[in-house]
Amino acid sequence: MKASQFFISTLKEAPADAEVVSHKLMMRAGLIKKLGAGIYNYMPMGLRVIRKVEAIVREEMNRAGAVECTMPVIQPAELWQETGRFEKMGPELLRISDRHGRDFVVQPTSEEVVTDIARQELRSYKQLPKNFYQIQTKFRDERRPRFGLMRGREFIMKDAYSFDRDQAAAKASYQVMAQAYRRIFDRFGLTYRAVAADSGAIGGDLSEEFQVIAATGEDAIVYCPGSDYAANMEKAEALAPQGPRPFPSQAMAKTATPGKSTCADVAELLGLPLSRTVKSLVLATDTTNEHGEIVKTQVWLLLLRGDHDMNEIKVNKVAGLENFRFATVAEIEDYFGCKPGYLGPIGLQKPVKIVVDREVAVMADWVCGANEADFHITGVNWGRDLPEPDAVADLRNVVAGDPSPDGKGVLAIERGIEVGHVFYLGTKYSRAMNATFLDENGKPQPFEMGCYGIGITRLPAAAIEQNHDERGIIWPDAIAPFTVVICPIGMDRSEEVKQAAEKLYAEMLAQGVDVLLDDRGERPGAMFADWELIGVPHRVTIGDKSLKEGVVEYQHRRDAAATKVAVSDVAAHVKGRMAV
Amino acid sequence: MKASQFFISTLKEAPADAEVVSHKLMMRAGLIKKLGAGIYNYMPMGLRVIRKVEAIVREEMNRAGAVECTMPVIQPAELWQETGRFEKMGPELLRISDRHGRDFVVQPTSEEVVTDIARQELRSYKQLPKNFYQIQTKFRDERRPRFGLMRGREFIMKDAYSFDRDQAAAKASYQVMAQAYRRIFDRFGLTYRAVAADSGAIGGDLSEEFQVIAATGEDAIVYCPGSDYAANMEKAEALAPQGPRPFPSQAMAKTATPGKSTCADVAELLGLPLSRTVKSLVLATDTTNEHGEIVKTQVWLLLLRGDHDMNEIKVNKVAGLENFRFATVAEIEDYFGCKPGYLGPIGLQKPVKIVVDREVAVMADWVCGANEADFHITGVNWGRDLPEPDAVADLRNVVAGDPSPDGKGVLAIERGIEVGHVFYLGTKYSRAMNATFLDENGKPQPFEMGCYGIGITRLPAAAIEQNHDERGIIWPDAIAPFTVVICPIGMDRSEEVKQAAEKLYAEMLAQGVDVLLDDRGERPGAMFADWELIGVPHRVTIGDKSLKEGVVEYQHRRDAAATKVAVSDVAAHVKGRMAV
Repeated sequence: MKASQFFISTLKEAPADAEVVSHKLMMRAGLIKKLGAGIYNYMPMGLRVIRKVEAIVREEMNRAGAVECTMPVIQPAELWQETGRFEKMGPELLRISDRHGRDFVVQPTSEEVVTDIARQELRSYKQLPKNFYQIQTKFRDERRPRFGLMRGREFIMKDAYSFDRDQAAAKASYQVMAQAYRRIFDRFGLTYRAVAADSGAIGGDLSEEFQVIAATGEDAIVYCPGSDYAANMEKAEALAPQGPRPFPSQAMAKTATPGKSTCADVAELLGLPLSRTVKSLVLATDTTNEHGEIVKTQVWLLLLRGDHDMNEIKVNKVAGLENFRFATVAEIEDYFGCKPGYLGPIGLQKPVKIVVDREVAVMADWVCGANEADFHITGVNWGRDLPEPDAVADLRNVVAGDPSPDGKGVLAIERGIEVGHVFYLGTKYSRAMNATFLDENGKPQPFEMGCYGIGITRLPAAAIEQNHDERGIIWPDAIAPFTVVICPIGMDRSEEVKQAAEKLYAEMLAQGVDVLLDDRGERPGAMFADWELIGVPHRVTIGDKSLKEGVVEYQHRRDAAATKVAVSDVAAHVKGRMAV
Repeated sequence: MKASQFFISTLKEAPADAEVVSHKLMMRAGLIKKLGAGIYNYMPMGLRVIRKVEAIVREEMNRAGAVECTMPVIQPAELWQETGRFEKMGPELLRISDRHGRDFVVQPTSEEVVTDIARQELRSYKQLPKNFYQIQTKFRDERRPRFGLMRGREFIMKDAYSFDRDQAAAKASYQVMAQAYRRIFDRFGLTYRAVAADSGAIGGDLSEEFQVIAATGEDAIVYCPGSDYAANMEKAEALAPQGPRPFPSQAMAKTATPGKSTCADVAELLGLPLSRTVKSLVLATDTTNEHGEIVKTQVWLLLLRGDHDMNEIKVNKVAGLENFRFATVAEIEDYFGCKPGYLGPIGLQKPVKIVVDREVAVMADWVCGANEADFHITGVNWGRDLPEPDAVADLRNVVAGDPSPDGKGVLAIERGIEVGHVFYLGTKYSRAMNATFLDENGKPQPFEMGCYGIGITRLPAAAIEQNHDERGIIWPDAIAPFTVVICPIGMDRSEEVKQAAEKLYAEMLAQGVDVLLDDRGERPGAMFADWELIGVPHRVTIGDKSLKEGVVEYQHRRDAAATKVAVSDVAAHVKGRMAV
């Protein structure tokens, strides 16, 4: 490609609404252009990146035996009513009426449509396994779209859906996809982790997120540097503490803690480590009748160590807490006779169920609120000062330094951006939509399903969050808009420069290199600044003076300085520096 | 590709709602699957065709210097309000509100968005010409979607938009696109015509439709077998008749024609050729005040020869008739004192403007209605029996046998399916959206624009309408889902057949041939029927018996019978039969 035939548009400043670096750089490098909130034009430079991402995904999906199709962007509501998602999904689901008043949705994913295809097309176990995928426009009407393509409303996703005859086969299909995803992410040239994720009500370990590692990532990733263990924060298990609970060594005492309503403040006031304090969280669960009216409310007191945070997914799994909510201030004052900040499990008058984290269950001589404003209690001990808790469970987020669940060291935490997810669905959709096939005995059986997504347009944003410097983007070769840029200096003045540039361009093109010749006639400073901003990984500069010495300059986007290379060697030199 | 890794699904019968052959065959061959009215899943077999169409279009668009980008499917209403199309477009434009109640449209085309990009990005004449294109999902909420992908609601279109500094440059850009379209349609391997089309109010000849020739086409195409002349019916000019009007030879006479309200019936009753009768059509134009209330209505009588049809586009161009409508029956009875079927220009009491086709203007001794039920008048002559008409113009559709406007023979008519359109837009959108660039003198000028569409998903349907037989589809090589299919007979029983099939498959793959090996183990009859229905152009059959003689069978989808070819020659033989 020659720059004069292409479209290059860079900006000195990012627009004010661009908060994160990838959004800023994508706008400045002219990869995308905002059309509305969370809605972007993919400009020529950006579309080249997206197409390269798509091509890698498509190749590996095909290699893994998945079959590509395309499901409509606008989908009839009827199918979405079969699974109840038309009603259940929130305002993220964009709903439309057509000219005849019929309801439609703009697809955020396609479970319903693909299950509808399967129940019509896959009639026999002999047709299984089958995995359909599409690379298609999606829409989620985010309440607060932001960060450019990172959390847009219209985006491109690769979504795949596997159909199997039984759980064992479904797990095999899942593993095929998990392996394909590793190949895909390896090929992107990004640092990533496949982390175990919560698989919801289905259970089992068949849910992994593919996280591109970046300090700016929204997600906390837990991993063990000494092993393969990696999970997202929701999923990562905090191991049960070792050894028995110590014996009490202190008497229980009420202590004035005026104005100290947080564990940190109390610990500081009392000169105790934060890990000796206990945090009280009040939850509630409602029982409703057939009309949806609340007929009974149960209040729960959740106790965590002062230096630990609650993990909602884990709390959700405690029997009875599946649909918990946080208690209201009125409920708290009613049950504890005290405002939040000084709550605790001692001396409760009303029926409150007490659920404690495993760490709290083995504490002795701990500190909690006195259920009286401006007072705490020290030296609290289980059994002696209050009954044993109603339930003990893993309720907290892990912290760096916790032992790894695989016993191979301690956990570390880093940040990531989720760009892929593989998930075992079971029969959730096939049962809801009565999607069955006939087994060997001619009996209808629901499909065992899995779903597998990759955020095609989110990936470039994640790649930039991971790979940039103060001058701009640094693309991995595999997804760079161009792999090589040739920058001739004074092409209009020097016939030698022009000829050398055209010759190298033709030579590289003939070798199948994705090369751009910058024939715009920009001055060197502006030209270099453009390409450093856009982030093309390999640059060859051809100047009049060095050409007289038979050399040109090569610089990788990560190199501190240019290297002189003989004109005759430069194509080979560039190829040598390219990722395989 | 091996069939076992792919997804093949054929039907014996087409669904009842499939009316045209392409719709029937696309459903039966498993290319598409209906999801809702005018909304289809592109199944794996169909998607391969679509991707091949896209690839050819993309290659030639790039070669012609156009730059690919992608504009959102969901577009903010604001831009559409700038041009007035948000209000003016009918219910075909699908309108949506998001969760915040903001208005959006699902794009049917992207003139507004691309003009918005241009007014921000193309600031100087030095950046021109520029042509942006996209291959993207579109939606038109057709009142009556039908014919499968031929007139669907959701579809894929390639739309390109050129931006130029002046009319001359815009015309050059138009010609570049018109040439690229010829290369694209040549490569598809279809019989097509580029026909002149009406360019609306803009004038000039810069509008061409690309029509795939098919007996079942919706559009009538006019062409001259002896020259390059081709136009659509709306556009094709009926030349002015040669020679002067003959002198009157009959006296005017009122004749009873009871119940004969059509020209054909009257001609038959009177024993005259249809070309001696004159057809009366009553139109009306309304003048409105600033409140949109009708303050005056002018009635027009349009006269055409009995064997000719009115051309609305041409009538629209007569001064005063730009916004004509057909008169109501009440208006007709008021002005002519007679119901439709017996109308004519003789003896009118109220002010009616008379506009006649050029053929009618040179007729003598003609027949028309008497403005009295069940009566006509014969022997009518201009000047003698009524004044000369108020206006004479080309108002009719041409008919086969009319002289060609280029003077090189007579016109013929065939049917076509419009799959592409190149169109000079002028400054319609740039002026409405105040989209300007700075010229050499630093003065803002509106862009001169053109737009260029190809119906990516309509093309396969058109290809099938043109290329099919009673057994199924016959794809041109360039857009076939697979170019070659290898059909081994009894692969499960014969190791020799299996090995020969696998070897040929590997050999062809290595040569870059898009080949499918049918390893499903179907019986020959079912297997052949599938591939004839699906329409793969080249088939190689490998059987145990012929293999012992060292031969396999080759059959092109259009061949009446198979040809025996030595195993060692078959790859070369197939290549020899492939389109270049």
